[in-house]
Amino acid sequence: QSNVQIYGLLDLGIVKRSNDTAKLDRGSNNRLGFRGTEDLGNGLSATFHLQTRFNPDTGTQERAAAFWQGESTVGLASKTWGGLRLGRAATPMNQKNWKFEPWESSGFNASLNAFQLGNFTFSADGTNDAAVGSANFIRIPNAVFYNSPTLNGISLAVAGQVEKEANARGRNRGFSLNYDSGPIALMLAGEQNTDRDRIGFVAASYTIGSARVMGSFTRIDQREIDDESSYVVGATYDVGPGMLRVGFGRDIDLDVSRISTGYLHPLSKRTKLYLDGWRHRTPVSATTYNGIALGVNHSF
Amino acid sequence: QSNVQIYGLLDLGIVKRSNDTAKLDRGSNNRLGFRGTEDLGNGLSATFHLQTRFNPDTGTQERAAAFWQGESTVGLASKTWGGLRLGRAATPMNQKNWKFEPWESSGFNASLNAFQLGNFTFSADGTNDAAVGSANFIRIPNAVFYNSPTLNGISLAVAGQVEKEANARGRNRGFSLNYDSGPIALMLAGEQNTDRDRIGFVAASYTIGSARVMGSFTRIDQREIDDESSYVVGATYDVGPGMLRVGFGRDIDLDVSRISTGYLHPLSKRTKLYLDGWRHRTPVSATTYNGIALGVNHSF
Amino acid sequence: QSNVQIYGLLDLGIVKRSNDTAKLDRGSNNRLGFRGTEDLGNGLSATFHLQTRFNPDTGTQERAAAFWQGESTVGLASKTWGGLRLGRAATPMNQKNWKFEPWESSGFNASLNAFQLGNFTFSADGTNDAAVGSANFIRIPNAVFYNSPTLNGISLAVAGQVEKEANARGRNRGFSLNYDSGPIALMLAGEQNTDRDRIGFVAASYTIGSARVMGSFTRIDQREIDDESSYVVGATYDVGPGMLRVGFGRDIDLDVSRISTGYLHPLSKRTKLYLDGWRHRTPVSATTYNGIALGVNHSF
Repeated sequence: QSNVQIYGLLDLGIVKRSNDTAKLDRGSNNRLGFRGTEDLGNGLSATFHLQTRFNPDTGTQERAAAFWQGESTVGLASKTWGGLRLGRAATPMNQKNWKFEPWESSGFNASLNAFQLGNFTFSADGTNDAAVGSANFIRIPNAVFYNSPTLNGISLAVAGQVEKEANARGRNRGFSLNYDSGPIALMLAGEQNTDRDRIGFVAASYTIGSARVMGSFTRIDQREIDDESSYVVGATYDVGPGMLRVGFGRDIDLDVSRISTGYLHPLSKRTKLYLDGWRHRTPVSATTYNGIALGVNHSF
Repeated sequence: QSNVQIYGLLDLGIVKRSNDTAKLDRGSNNRLGFRGTEDLGNGLSATFHLQTRFNPDTGTQERAAAFWQGESTVGLASKTWGGLRLGRAATPMNQKNWKFEPWESSGFNASLNAFQLGNFTFSADGTNDAAVGSANFIRIPNAVFYNSPTLNGISLAVAGQVEKEANARGRNRGFSLNYDSGPIALMLAGEQNTDRDRIGFVAASYTIGSARVMGSFTRIDQREIDDESSYVVGATYDVGPGMLRVGFGRDIDLDVSRISTGYLHPLSKRTKLYLDGWRHRTPVSATTYNGIALGVNHSF
Repeated sequence: QSNVQIYGLLDLGIVKRSNDTAKLDRGSNNRLGFRGTEDLGNGLSATFHLQTRFNPDTGTQERAAAFWQGESTVGLASKTWGGLRLGRAATPMNQKNWKFEPWESSGFNASLNAFQLGNFTFSADGTNDAAVGSANFIRIPNAVFYNSPTLNGISLAVAGQVEKEANARGRNRGFSLNYDSGPIALMLAGEQNTDRDRIGFVAASYTIGSARVMGSFTRIDQREIDDESSYVVGATYDVGPGMLRVGFGRDIDLDVSRISTGYLHPLSKRTKLYLDGWRHRTPVSATTYNGIALGVNHSF
């Protein structure tokens, strides 16, 4: 038993958008994971990580084609040299971009994740298989993942596909360079997917007392559709044990924007209630709507 | 690890019906679950519950479309005010009707569950999606579930869908009122599914020494097909550590009936052998058959 | 928690065959299992075993149709009389043939498993459902499995289907007789699948100091295609904590052969690195290729 750690997160809330029925929906990606670390001596260890994702509102898997949708890797980690994993996992950019978004880039409700990753603009050709994440910037199958140790606050993550998949233009690959020390955090990341679309991402955050301000800028070069630039600015403010969140994201080229705010109320370290509101504007299609979400987030 | 409790149940037996080949089949719904409770103080706690169902005779999921077929919920529970869960779970009626059926409403072999729930008569229109339980009386997705504390033996369960599903006539909702004190247990439940079919259920049981007698009556009003009334009467009798079971169920309108008997032999609290026999009569189609099942039931 | 043991194995490596792209691929069948034993007293115990299989390179299930692809059984075991399991599990032959193959019959990379089981030659008619293993010699659904205790090094395994499946010519059934004492291990097995194809298998191994030599001979009688004979010879040699492996397999009738060698380097009892090379010859189609694999194998 001691070889396996079981963990998870469940998040559901009541969500209402203007012009839509009330829904029970996720506020984050729900997960159940199994992971472990074996000490091999001399600072070396073996690691494994399996994580399934699901929709607790209906009991279904997040993606039918990939039961271990969150991660499925085996690897070796050295305190001196860093860690190497084989399998399918989040890209370097996706491993840390959530630190620069007030809703931790959940992708649901008030989250401004779409203005960080551009993941709502998949390219339109046949190699785009969202089920295995082959043509987006979120996860890479059939890949090697390297994460450096942190030296003077600096760390590096690199990943690349071993295998060129059928119908792919190229191998998915990416890097992320991070600095995190005292009040300052900085991030620079770049990736290329199997369509040879490219994404560049730069982000920064600064902590002053109970407040943290953050921002990111993303540039996506896409082969099948027009290029896009987008940005996110946001802030969090601790109010006693709770936290106020506010943020604004905008895709400059698509002229889509969202302004969000919310309050996170912890019942414990592992259990939180949230109340979020947002306004999403798409002038070109005149589909502006408001949203509100009240939910519970529990990790174990 | 202490945050997660893993539990489960496996039940397989050799089943033979007249005019059919012998089969290896379930005697109950096989399950593996992960659940936990976090104490938040002041009698409040956070809860989660994930349960997958499967057919161990073939290794397949019980329903391909819903991995967490048994339950997927997150919630808060108060000792004073009761518990609230969000997600997908058994309806109020289905949470307790099994207490009034000698085979605990397993739905397999000798069980008389079909004469309690009418779940063998799904309505025939397009909103009936058994995979997510949208048009039956067993489970509700996209719902809120409330369970009161028990006061003087009385408890109440209520559930309702937040979301009106595509193609549904209405939201699934239901209640169950229960009394359980000393030798007497009573239950009254009513539900309406997404087709606006309605079910009413009343049940009682009485314990005298080693014997327990029980009965239930069910009325189903269905929009697409004729209404139905059905009932179950049954008894259990403790014989040393074992238990004799006998019961009779009848759907008055369909003129279907079943008489069942069996013996449950515990090898431990968690492991039991069972031998059951039953006779199922459908006069209208002249498809009377006899069945016999010998199996093992193991929980962990 | 003490009722459930969680275990698993992950194995991924970089694999390159001549005339093919480099790939990230399994070197063994990846698995996560839940199992338990309950002591019932008097040498009797209840057992359950659930094992899912998956491809960590893509996060997908090994076979979409059977989540518990590895095993799903419940049973009773006696120290005196042996164990009985109900459900779906490996056939008697497949439970132990891996002891006579240097790569433990993984079926991947350098493994010579195909020359033991002939599992690359499914018969071609409609009853062949690889998803549930109905027409091969690897797993049996809807079956009873008996494993005797070991007496004087001798043990017997027998399994057979309770249920004759739809479209099947017959019930899957098989046996395996094993002797394992001191330096000598012997095995004799025979099985018949649902197509009434038959397989006979005889194997032996001998240990001399750090070396172990082994061999097996297989004869398959198939109804839809020509019969086949095949054999495997192999040896392992302990080099300090590591192990050299060498083997040769040949299907005499198809004129397919493979010669393999490799080195297994343990980082711990649970974590190993491997480097394997092999040459696969199919003269009739002139598709000879070489392969090389470098990977990590971690169990927990």
